[in-house]
Amino acid sequence: MKTKLSLLAFASILSVQLCLAQTNEPVVEDFKPSTLNQPGQQYPQVNSQRRVRYRIVASQAQSVSAGRTTLTKGEDGVWVGISQPMDEGFHYYHLTVDGGTFNDPSTLNFYGSTRWESGIEIPAHDQDFYALKDVPHGRVQQVLFPSKLTNSIIARPAYIYTPPDYDKDTTKRYPVLYLQHGWGENEYAWWNQGRANLIMDNLIAEGRTKPFIIVMTYGLTNEGPGPGARRGGPGSGTNTNATVAAASTNSPGRGPFGGARGGANPFTGAAAVFEKVLVGELIPYIDSNFRTLTDQPNRGMAGLSMGGMETKIITLKNLDKFSHIGLFSGGTITTNDVNNTSSFREKVKVVFASCGSRENPGNINANHAALNSIGLKNTAYVSPDTAHEFQTWRRSLREFAPLLFRD
Amino acid sequence: MKTKLSLLAFASILSVQLCLAQTNEPVVEDFKPSTLNQPGQQYPQVNSQRRVRYRIVASQAQSVSAGRTTLTKGEDGVWVGISQPMDEGFHYYHLTVDGGTFNDPSTLNFYGSTRWESGIEIPAHDQDFYALKDVPHGRVQQVLFPSKLTNSIIARPAYIYTPPDYDKDTTKRYPVLYLQHGWGENEYAWWNQGRANLIMDNLIAEGRTKPFIIVMTYGLTNEGPGPGARRGGPGSGTNTNATVAAASTNSPGRGPFGGARGGANPFTGAAAVFEKVLVGELIPYIDSNFRTLTDQPNRGMAGLSMGGMETKIITLKNLDKFSHIGLFSGGTITTNDVNNTSSFREKVKVVFASCGSRENPGNINANHAALNSIGLKNTAYVSPDTAHEFQTWRRSLREFAPLLFRD
Repeated sequence: MKTKLSLLAFASILSVQLCLAQTNEPVVEDFKPSTLNQPGQQYPQVNSQRRVRYRIVASQAQSVSAGRTTLTKGEDGVWVGISQPMDEGFHYYHLTVDGGTFNDPSTLNFYGSTRWESGIEIPAHDQDFYALKDVPHGRVQQVLFPSKLTNSIIARPAYIYTPPDYDKDTTKRYPVLYLQHGWGENEYAWWNQGRANLIMDNLIAEGRTKPFIIVMTYGLTNEGPGPGARRGGPGSGTNTNATVAAASTNSPGRGPFGGARGGANPFTGAAAVFEKVLVGELIPYIDSNFRTLTDQPNRGMAGLSMGGMETKIITLKNLDKFSHIGLFSGGTITTNDVNNTSSFREKVKVVFASCGSRENPGNINANHAALNSIGLKNTAYVSPDTAHEFQTWRRSLREFAPLLFRD
Repeated sequence: MKTKLSLLAFASILSVQLCLAQTNEPVVEDFKPSTLNQPGQQYPQVNSQRRVRYRIVASQAQSVSAGRTTLTKGEDGVWVGISQPMDEGFHYYHLTVDGGTFNDPSTLNFYGSTRWESGIEIPAHDQDFYALKDVPHGRVQQVLFPSKLTNSIIARPAYIYTPPDYDKDTTKRYPVLYLQHGWGENEYAWWNQGRANLIMDNLIAEGRTKPFIIVMTYGLTNEGPGPGARRGGPGSGTNTNATVAAASTNSPGRGPFGGARGGANPFTGAAAVFEKVLVGELIPYIDSNFRTLTDQPNRGMAGLSMGGMETKIITLKNLDKFSHIGLFSGGTITTNDVNNTSSFREKVKVVFASCGSRENPGNINANHAALNSIGLKNTAYVSPDTAHEFQTWRRSLREFAPLLFRD
């Protein structure tokens, strides 16, 4: 029942429409190349109104659009167009060229919507907290952990953030946060779109959070037997750069919840298998290969959107393993959850829920009040002027991290 | 003079044309999805003749080609085409749609030719040596190392392979190989296109090589002051997945040797700055942040194509720091180099040169004989039936690694 409610909540989250501000103000000519352009590329560009100017070369094309913006062909055969103002932060988009879906050849790609999409970054007024600064930097590393629970997979990938100084004192051990992406994304999302490593580097440099390890893995288990050539053989892609890993050790392209084969509630099934992978395989791997503090008070889990749903399901079933819970645009821990989950009050140290102001902040705030009314300390955060997008989740991590592993 | 010769040699390498076998044999219908397709994508496909079948949806397009293959629009509005047989291994390609350059929306992207290109993998008869197997796996991790020598860069990225067991015995120290990509590529090339980590995992599991650390960084320093928005600010992309790092902390899109500003020989200038970064900044960073053996006998350098040129220039100028030299499709250490470089015979333990059989194996073999004639032990390797492509370099690493740090 709990799971079913979560599924409904998730469906309602997905239905939130991005409300773009429509403006008739004249376009300000202060465009600069997006920071996510490929090397040497001048377009797309972003201006101070948070508008994007796209430029696509396809002289014989009949129609070109970029995201919601329809481009117009100039006399030079080049297609250009300027968007309405966008929210601050990171956005996915793609082109439609003559009826085909392509990425903008000028921008970098990010895995979202179960495909590698073009990305654009709208400079934010508070962008300093996820900037690359001259501070000590932690590292992000790929691990390939053995997984027998999922179909014919030799090893699954995860990316691990270790804080600065992790390798300086090889006797020190650290708490661990398991941090999950959303539907249609993968294990690259949090450190690329989300910049989790830079957020942590900056928080640690300012003394605002205790250093801890972050583990980011793929949150579905929908690889299946699939086409044989896609798995196991050379080039099967577990070798993984942004691209490769996602491609072949993961196959998130099978419908909204992945692995939707035979179950009435595919999300429940997928989450159940993922729980086994996370709890039965990944946690033991991390605890035996990294210098972690392995007790329950030093392990947390958080996730965005679908990853928040997974966090709720997995932590509530495994309170002997998790003490800190963060749900970013991914539902709430309700008074019912608290009352109906054995030992909740003794076991759980941090309960955190967040969303963007353009999502459903009323729900977050009401739940915060309800938890307070039963005497359960908890934190609610609403990201100003953002929707179901990564700027909300970057800020959520900034707010959540300082609460963790404080004693 | 030495450098000038290297530049000429490199230019001649670039001019090697890929000789595709033309065949009129009927197409064999045993196509399977390429292992580098995006999740869930069935095209492009590869058959036992090493032909590729492309399929692109763009119903209103006037013309579509994929690499050298011209596609034809079917009655369903979908463009399809079958290539001539290709060489085994990894190849870059892109689409041309109505005069515009796009990537195949169905495949993963890899940085080559100074842009993120589509990738396809033609199964090779010897693919086992770079397959993901059930053996202990090392890790690949991103570091952001401080760099004051290059323009206004806060930190430069590198990817580090640590062998299996690196974190099991935290007292053990390891030799280090600095391994460089080719022109138009970046620090992702060796572990993604090249699968260097899997090659090492497999060699180590078979006891064929001593475990060592591999350091892969971006081999040019052409970021320049550039557009301000591209650097330093949030989203400037040092956060780096395959995509991000390359995008913004590097800008290899400025011409064949990058940073070609004001110098008569841009490659010399670029290599000189890169030498300072490598020797002055990266090596000290690695030696102070990883458990390395820091003496000259335990440090090597190798590279492919332009990376081989860099390896030759940098190692010969720094024989107090490097003892093992590998040039993959990137020139040779000549008898003149041996005779004219102080202490060469005492300092250098391994000299290795390789290329594909479709490149200029005569030069590699003749140089091998010439070095033998002056009593200098060296290894030459010619990769069968491959050109100036990654299959040559995967095999070169397989042949080179077992020679290293044998003492």
